[in-house]
Amino acid sequence: MKRKLICSLLFIPFIAAAQQDLAKYVKPIIGTQKMGHTYPGATLPFGSVQLSPETDTLSYEQNGKYNGDVYKYCAGYKYEDRTIVGFSHTHFSGTGHSDLGDFLVMPTQGKLQMNPGTAADPKSGYRSAFSHQNETAEAGYYKVKLDDDQITAELTASKRVGMHQYTFKKSDESHVILDLMSGIYNYPDKNVWTYVRVVNDSLITGYRQTNGWARTRTVYFAMSFSKAFKSYGSKNYDRKQAYRGFWGKFDQTKNFPELAGKQLRMYFDFNTAEQEKIKIKLAISPVSQENALENMQAEIPGWDFEQVRKQARGEWNKELNKITVNTDEDDKVNFYTAMYHAFINPTTYNDVNGEYKGLDQGVHKASGFTNYTTFSLWDTYRALHPFFNLIQPSRNNDMVKSMMAHYDQSSLKMLPVWSNSANDNWCMSGYHSVSVITDAIIKGVYNGDAEAALQACIVTSNHRDYDGIGYYIDKGYIPAEKSGTSISNTLEYAYDDWCIAQLAKKLNKQDVYQEYMKRSGNWVNNFDPAIGFMRAKMADGKFQQKFDIMSTQGQGFIEGNSWNYSFFVPQDPNSLIEHMGGKKKFASKLDTLFTMHLPDEFFAETEDITREGIIGGYVHGNEPAHHVAYLYNWAGQPSKTQSRVRMILKMQYKDTPDGLGGNDDCGQMSAWYIFSSLGFYPVAPGSDEYSLGSPAVKSAVVKLENGKTFTVEAINQSDKNVYVQKVLLNGTPVTNQTIKHADIIAGGKLTFYMSSKASK
Amino acid sequence: MKRKLICSLLFIPFIAAAQQDLAKYVKPIIGTQKMGHTYPGATLPFGSVQLSPETDTLSYEQNGKYNGDVYKYCAGYKYEDRTIVGFSHTHFSGTGHSDLGDFLVMPTQGKLQMNPGTAADPKSGYRSAFSHQNETAEAGYYKVKLDDDQITAELTASKRVGMHQYTFKKSDESHVILDLMSGIYNYPDKNVWTYVRVVNDSLITGYRQTNGWARTRTVYFAMSFSKAFKSYGSKNYDRKQAYRGFWGKFDQTKNFPELAGKQLRMYFDFNTAEQEKIKIKLAISPVSQENALENMQAEIPGWDFEQVRKQARGEWNKELNKITVNTDEDDKVNFYTAMYHAFINPTTYNDVNGEYKGLDQGVHKASGFTNYTTFSLWDTYRALHPFFNLIQPSRNNDMVKSMMAHYDQSSLKMLPVWSNSANDNWCMSGYHSVSVITDAIIKGVYNGDAEAALQACIVTSNHRDYDGIGYYIDKGYIPAEKSGTSISNTLEYAYDDWCIAQLAKKLNKQDVYQEYMKRSGNWVNNFDPAIGFMRAKMADGKFQQKFDIMSTQGQGFIEGNSWNYSFFVPQDPNSLIEHMGGKKKFASKLDTLFTMHLPDEFFAETEDITREGIIGGYVHGNEPAHHVAYLYNWAGQPSKTQSRVRMILKMQYKDTPDGLGGNDDCGQMSAWYIFSSLGFYPVAPGSDEYSLGSPAVKSAVVKLENGKTFTVEAINQSDKNVYVQKVLLNGTPVTNQTIKHADIIAGGKLTFYMSSKASK
Repeated sequence: MKRKLICSLLFIPFIAAAQQDLAKYVKPIIGTQKMGHTYPGATLPFGSVQLSPETDTLSYEQNGKYNGDVYKYCAGYKYEDRTIVGFSHTHFSGTGHSDLGDFLVMPTQGKLQMNPGTAADPKSGYRSAFSHQNETAEAGYYKVKLDDDQITAELTASKRVGMHQYTFKKSDESHVILDLMSGIYNYPDKNVWTYVRVVNDSLITGYRQTNGWARTRTVYFAMSFSKAFKSYGSKNYDRKQAYRGFWGKFDQTKNFPELAGKQLRMYFDFNTAEQEKIKIKLAISPVSQENALENMQAEIPGWDFEQVRKQARGEWNKELNKITVNTDEDDKVNFYTAMYHAFINPTTYNDVNGEYKGLDQGVHKASGFTNYTTFSLWDTYRALHPFFNLIQPSRNNDMVKSMMAHYDQSSLKMLPVWSNSANDNWCMSGYHSVSVITDAIIKGVYNGDAEAALQACIVTSNHRDYDGIGYYIDKGYIPAEKSGTSISNTLEYAYDDWCIAQLAKKLNKQDVYQEYMKRSGNWVNNFDPAIGFMRAKMADGKFQQKFDIMSTQGQGFIEGNSWNYSFFVPQDPNSLIEHMGGKKKFASKLDTLFTMHLPDEFFAETEDITREGIIGGYVHGNEPAHHVAYLYNWAGQPSKTQSRVRMILKMQYKDTPDGLGGNDDCGQMSAWYIFSSLGFYPVAPGSDEYSLGSPAVKSAVVKLENGKTFTVEAINQSDKNVYVQKVLLNGTPVTNQTIKHADIIAGGKLTFYMSSKASK
Repeated sequence: MKRKLICSLLFIPFIAAAQQDLAKYVKPIIGTQKMGHTYPGATLPFGSVQLSPETDTLSYEQNGKYNGDVYKYCAGYKYEDRTIVGFSHTHFSGTGHSDLGDFLVMPTQGKLQMNPGTAADPKSGYRSAFSHQNETAEAGYYKVKLDDDQITAELTASKRVGMHQYTFKKSDESHVILDLMSGIYNYPDKNVWTYVRVVNDSLITGYRQTNGWARTRTVYFAMSFSKAFKSYGSKNYDRKQAYRGFWGKFDQTKNFPELAGKQLRMYFDFNTAEQEKIKIKLAISPVSQENALENMQAEIPGWDFEQVRKQARGEWNKELNKITVNTDEDDKVNFYTAMYHAFINPTTYNDVNGEYKGLDQGVHKASGFTNYTTFSLWDTYRALHPFFNLIQPSRNNDMVKSMMAHYDQSSLKMLPVWSNSANDNWCMSGYHSVSVITDAIIKGVYNGDAEAALQACIVTSNHRDYDGIGYYIDKGYIPAEKSGTSISNTLEYAYDDWCIAQLAKKLNKQDVYQEYMKRSGNWVNNFDPAIGFMRAKMADGKFQQKFDIMSTQGQGFIEGNSWNYSFFVPQDPNSLIEHMGGKKKFASKLDTLFTMHLPDEFFAETEDITREGIIGGYVHGNEPAHHVAYLYNWAGQPSKTQSRVRMILKMQYKDTPDGLGGNDDCGQMSAWYIFSSLGFYPVAPGSDEYSLGSPAVKSAVVKLENGKTFTVEAINQSDKNVYVQKVLLNGTPVTNQTIKHADIIAGGKLTFYMSSKASK
């Protein structure tokens, strides 16, 4: 009876879950300070548009010298800054490299200023000072007062359209700047071309074409004003004079409606009454101006800003309600902000009519699926895509279809490595599409042609000319002379190959399975039993003489040292443990990792993270060690997994602007948080097993797409009670620290009994 | 009986006309030397592809210095040159400004050379010496032996596809260069972007995007080889290093199939047997790679070079046979080469599926018409489009539809001035689209919405911000302080306005007619009765003090001095004659024009022509005076029209490479030749009247689209018998030196009785 009551109490909030305003827990500002590289602006779940303020891009030239920074302004916004340059429509969330920042819009009043000005002297240009007191960032909504001209700026968005609302003072010199040369990491010549067409007195269309991290990328746009501008103009900042000839017959700087060039800024003039609101809708498309216009008309036909804002929040609530948690209010902020960040990428990359630009730079139609881009796979194969398999299976199905479309459109015949707007920038090591594909097929999520998918995995993994694969195939490792990331490549290829083997097994391709299981053992070739660590190996088969297990630079790794990477055998922890001298020695090594001191000289080499992003020598701010805390389970010390996981959850995720210890990496950091908060984690995607940790929530209900719910309950939960006494799955004890994906999908309940003491 | 026999004899060749190989008279080499600016390569009537050798483009940088020339290499080929750089796929015919030259292909053997080398030392690069002895240029076919590597190059084309056939020696180092950075007038930064995709071992697709005379132009291509290349590679010559990041994982210079950049050259390697022919098909599209491929498959599905060559000749013969002439063999060469040059432009600008890029840079479908570009209207409104109204009415109907589509897609709402590949470069003065449109409607050729066409003409003519139109409207002339071409603009606007008036009259818009008739009288405002010439007028209404009627520079004209431009009142010669003091004085002034000596200092100012391009002070090599010889008819001295026309025909058109005295100007010079050879000329397009001259042919049969034929017969024709004794139209004497368009279209016969003596 008592028990029943508890259940009922627990369930009451969940019954009403569809109506819960969980968006109130989302603080987009988390991660905008220091290394998180998130942005505070307005976007929809997996939206194409990310309308957000740029506090700087450092992307202009000053004194003839390029002043860019590929890293600092990845998201366009740094909480530390005191000025806003404008609001642009595309942003990466949490990356460690820069691109995008298209179509920067800024309202101003008074004397027209076409230059952005400087952070030190915002009044020297169109930028403005602002303060965080006057700033609101919510899921799907952002508001800030621009101090210089006392203009209130509000932003919201639909999937493909950004909506601005600017409240002006009375003036006959109100302006809206459209800076088409601004962009994130706009080194010289990144702007390839811009075209603008002023269709009428309140509509313009065009495109911006860049040569950035995406080598050849075009974003089309349509921009509509709620009020007709009284005049407009432009300035071309390209220093090189192209042929002009008879173009001079028109004064192209004023009220001239057909513009093209490499470096363009535009302005639009208005008379405004006191507190008059001018609204702007800016739709984007990867395909055409016409499609951008169609997107606008389909998604935001009217001018009701509040309605769009409400719809945006509704879209977020719909996604956030897929998991309802009972936990402290602070943790709810962390949890739902993690959900929010996890549901930003990949981004939708097709128009409302289904058309998108393919990797072959041709126009394709996404038939029966949504096409996605922004696949930061080195990061996201680990936990984000497994999380999608759980909570967003339909979308992950479409993501795999998008990867297959990418492959089909690729002359190279390569699955995506880092898919960015119809381009691959081949960022980071491995070919981790195969992990995502395998995980989706193993878990029954992908409904496309699995045989074709396997074939794509096989072809991708046999690109001998790509990043040492030829050496890897021939020698089982990559000679240190041949690659700066010889070890991480070998370790990641080996894991990926294990995925291919699992997929082959599932499809009854025994020969492929055998071949790839063999390849998956290649990690051994970089393991030096003499030192007990992964170590670079030379072409002659000898280990590299000079080698530093603490160093991240020049040792054969990327974003990790040997201490972190040596544990990267997620496909076979047992074998790794054996090679490292057995469970005890292995656990002791893990202990050292979490407690050692990383000297400053080595920390300085560790990219993308703050001092807070590491625990001992364990670098949570980068991804290679994300599964490491769970390895204690294999070493017979699950309680250490439990305490470490809880410690990481506490230390690495805070509900403050600087709350993320490293780049959120398109949601991977957040997905780690969500899984770990729920008490389980996919150590080796491609397997149908999750390794149990220690839930941080009191309880959670996961609403599955199949209509079932999976409940996690942590009895006796508290901050101190990080240890799990026992676990019941639907009442049956779980003794192997493992649950299967099918167990979850079947619906049911996982009950953790928490304690302040480690269980034996 | 005798007469009947003559008729029969005359008609016998015409009955078999459809089968006549008139292409044998076409010498594309005419005009390739000096100022003609024609090209010798392969194209189809109104074809999209113009596949022709570049003897130079001077478009590369040498010693860090740009070595370009906007004028000399307008057609890419100069007869005077001794080396060929390669064969590119797009060329203007006869222009005075440069663009195009896309996709330069060159076969080489031996050591791979990626640089073009120099004319002085062709062996220093991929270019080759050649000699005219080893060169053949025919309608739709071009052949040359490339001396450096002893490779025979042959070119032919379908409408949208260029076909190459290269006969190699035996070698395992045979190459085909694809220079994607080469182009005509390739000043720095003209190349905006290039994308290439190697689809398989014998097919590549991609696009080239330029910022040239067409400000924002993209040409897509698909290139297919008859034999698989054994290897391939590329070099990026862009000096600026863009972000490369992880792209370095691939060696992108060798066998890498996805290229993009600003300055790319590619090569393809082959083993060749002795005399092995490698064929290439390169299709272009304004819309997409896919469409380029579709164009290729639709137009040249196979690899039979000779068949394509034969089809090309067949297409030419079909067009050439529309007029069959009986004249000396030499004159037939001139006549059919003029027909050939007249039928090159405008060029087809839509794919086989009807899609094309519009002025709004969007993709449109040409429904029910062929979309054309390359409208050099300042030149071609005079005689080329009137010629089309006669002999190519369906095409001219489509050309007007293309102009209207251009207008509809224009944010500016401007009819084309110089339409170049979905751009307007606004080259030269006037808004002569209105002449072409009016002429087509007056002559019953345009079957579109005439009211909409009139509206487009009106809107275009009221662009106050364009090239002095505001002043013209307000003051009736353009103040000399405000424009360097104040007089030519006013004169041409006045003529164009007369056209609009005619169109309005036709559509019963009496008010518009009145308004534009008034505007058409504005030429008077620049006529200075004190000197009897057109003269620049200042804002204060006084004529410009310092003024030189001989000078072409700085007097208020473009491509003409006051001597030539003062006769430019084609809409009202009678009034001009009156202003100039009556018929006798007027005729005497014309005599002076044709007999005066133009001092070298003034000749030097006259652009685009050779010394041979002028007769006295009459500049036939430029267009403004093209109607002038016919003005004697108004002055009561038709015999002078007759003798001058025959003199111009003889002096300005020769069957030699340097046979054209000035730029052919997209066929205008050639259309003048054809009309004048037939004995009549459209002095004022927009009128339905032709002014009679002196036919140069013995006889000609014009086959009209309506199935009727119009025959011109010159009885007693000879080089000396340039004077017309009498003219009969279907047996009825013509006494006013005029025939109407309807007279021709009705079919019938115009008989000139020639004499060596002027008729009274």
